[in-house]
Amino acid sequence: MPTLVMKFGGTSVATLDRIRRAAKRVGVEVAKGYDVIVIVSAMSGKTNELVGWVNETSPLFDAREYDAVVSSGENVTAGLMALTLQEMDIPARSWQGWQVPVMTTSAHSAARIEDIPPENINEKFAEGMKVAVVAGFQGVSPEGRITTLGRGGSDTTAVAFAAAFDAERCDIYTDVDGVYTTDPRICADARKLDRIAFEEMLELASLGAKVLQTRSVELAMRYKVKLRVLSSFEEQSDEAGTLVCDEEDIMESNVVAGVAYSRDEAKMTLVSVADRPGIAAAIFSPLSEAGVNVDMIVQNISDDGRTDMTFSCPTDQVARAEKAMEEAKTRGDINFHDLVADQAVAKISVVGIGMRSHTGVAAKMFRVLSAEGINIKVITTSEIKISVLVERKYMELAVQALHEAFELEKAA
Amino acid sequence: MPTLVMKFGGTSVATLDRIRRAAKRVGVEVAKGYDVIVIVSAMSGKTNELVGWVNETSPLFDAREYDAVVSSGENVTAGLMALTLQEMDIPARSWQGWQVPVMTTSAHSAARIEDIPPENINEKFAEGMKVAVVAGFQGVSPEGRITTLGRGGSDTTAVAFAAAFDAERCDIYTDVDGVYTTDPRICADARKLDRIAFEEMLELASLGAKVLQTRSVELAMRYKVKLRVLSSFEEQSDEAGTLVCDEEDIMESNVVAGVAYSRDEAKMTLVSVADRPGIAAAIFSPLSEAGVNVDMIVQNISDDGRTDMTFSCPTDQVARAEKAMEEAKTRGDINFHDLVADQAVAKISVVGIGMRSHTGVAAKMFRVLSAEGINIKVITTSEIKISVLVERKYMELAVQALHEAFELEKAA
Repeated sequence: MPTLVMKFGGTSVATLDRIRRAAKRVGVEVAKGYDVIVIVSAMSGKTNELVGWVNETSPLFDAREYDAVVSSGENVTAGLMALTLQEMDIPARSWQGWQVPVMTTSAHSAARIEDIPPENINEKFAEGMKVAVVAGFQGVSPEGRITTLGRGGSDTTAVAFAAAFDAERCDIYTDVDGVYTTDPRICADARKLDRIAFEEMLELASLGAKVLQTRSVELAMRYKVKLRVLSSFEEQSDEAGTLVCDEEDIMESNVVAGVAYSRDEAKMTLVSVADRPGIAAAIFSPLSEAGVNVDMIVQNISDDGRTDMTFSCPTDQVARAEKAMEEAKTRGDINFHDLVADQAVAKISVVGIGMRSHTGVAAKMFRVLSAEGINIKVITTSEIKISVLVERKYMELAVQALHEAFELEKAA
Repeated sequence: MPTLVMKFGGTSVATLDRIRRAAKRVGVEVAKGYDVIVIVSAMSGKTNELVGWVNETSPLFDAREYDAVVSSGENVTAGLMALTLQEMDIPARSWQGWQVPVMTTSAHSAARIEDIPPENINEKFAEGMKVAVVAGFQGVSPEGRITTLGRGGSDTTAVAFAAAFDAERCDIYTDVDGVYTTDPRICADARKLDRIAFEEMLELASLGAKVLQTRSVELAMRYKVKLRVLSSFEEQSDEAGTLVCDEEDIMESNVVAGVAYSRDEAKMTLVSVADRPGIAAAIFSPLSEAGVNVDMIVQNISDDGRTDMTFSCPTDQVARAEKAMEEAKTRGDINFHDLVADQAVAKISVVGIGMRSHTGVAAKMFRVLSAEGINIKVITTSEIKISVLVERKYMELAVQALHEAFELEKAA
């Protein structure tokens, strides 16, 4: 039998009625002849409640106990989903992480899946079970303790099962109906993509299109798992949602797949830094140690042995970054005249694997922004992405103008 | 190190504050030098919520899934209790049933504990852990599925751990401060017992003194586990609560230890049954198969080959009993003129191991009731108990009169 993995997030299993609706979707796939592995999250709100209790009990909690407590929400949903399927006369049973087993590292509350031996579940499929309902987000450490994979970990569980069981596809049911060319709240013309390449999805996900956990996309790319994002709140056809897949499975695509933005960016400039070999390491090592997530880095052309170094980071890490830089200066590790933080910026990115073979995307992007009177503060590029920092007040305008200029409202 | 088992019921761990209070009690015992095994129930209300979800999802549920869902409440409390103890600098960790492992039968939702290998927990005690916090009420079947022990199962978990670890004592913390000579709500003179024999506790528990689950008392009796019932809401001394123990550990005791009552009894009489060998089996086998819990049984003296057979059962099983009897009559298995159900009765019992060596308890009981004008409908006796059925409206009066006549307000 071909195997299908279906994952339902917290909002899709928030009530018994929603669990029933999700179970009906599972029933449709079972009727097509699939053996189905269903991965469930906790009912929405439950995990937050449990995390709240742990934090209140012990602010610097033992992560092993955190995992033991927080994983319980998924166990409840898994049992209820199995019961719902049984009521529909579909042979189903629930599996907790340790029962499969989902073998993980011992990095509690941020564990990585190391192996999912398929034997136990396959034995039950062979005996006639049609659906294995697995509690997402959790596993078991080599020491036999319960682990969790970190927030959004159920997406990762789903992809890992799809890889371990060589599933035909991994369907992620969520509260949006797919991946869009940009945020529909900002741009009314935003269009749902039928397909998107793993690389593009990674760039979009890490830029704030919070549809799929980044780790799950990385894992899907590595094991070539076809990943589909679709809504659990709409009637579905086989072509619903967005398929995240290998580049080769995308026949035609626009040069630019989408426009992403990030609002909470700050631009920091170290003015007049002594330019010498090793200066970048001297700046960014202390930032890293201070837990600052540096994103874009730009070094200006050096002039008489001094340069300006600009980087971006999340706005809530500005104070931490300033402290780290002042301390490095005090220690004499670096030398600069001034540190200027600009917290009123936003990052805009255009993403598309088509850029690899098409030139002129960057030039067009700059032209469009210029035509709208938007000044570009920082530019960085990668093979499939061009990002710029602009004044935050121009963010929506920039997204709309780029979406229109690249004609993203039209399918390829 | 001597080992102590401490069990906290649902009301004793209902909130984070109450968990902290319970943890402080544990800390007192750790300070005395004990290795402590703490058994926790789910926060009160949680199990009912989970059971409600299961029933709504699937009225004829798969008990294996019921167990998977319903056991999760205890896991949450176990983790939170371990974290609370750690915050008090007491080395502690949580254990779920399968981690210990608590090995049970496969009788899901009513499993029996078969073995608790102490090695895993003892290894951690040897490494310096002072408290093992174990999720009560749950275990793991030979098939590796999660089982539960039935309602009130955490008491049984506690006693089984006390037996497996040869604990000095098993303290059951609950919302009452001990076992009373009778219900204080009915009789203001009711007195807390310092000690009570296992046999007496069994008779009182099964009669409705809902302090300890009957199975846990049976288990404690078999393994000679000293069981103490005490309140988690009061400051405690070593002499607090009631010690349930072997008869030999009770120096002096009243002839009668307590007066119990049960309100929800019905008296059923099969009028004019043909009296022949095997008639009792012909009556009570179908009742048993119909799930009727028959308690008292009285057969009147036979007259011209016919007799009246009277039995008692819970009031909510009367309809089921009537159906079973009519069906047996239709099949020709039994023959009776009439079936009379009296649902306005109550059972009153006096219990005490002293009855074994003292005569006259029954006679005194009948005298007391007679003096109050209370008519006795049915009498049954055992070695340490005399029970009568009376009109329900006399229940309180009967309890008060017997309590006073046997001077239960005075210690031995």
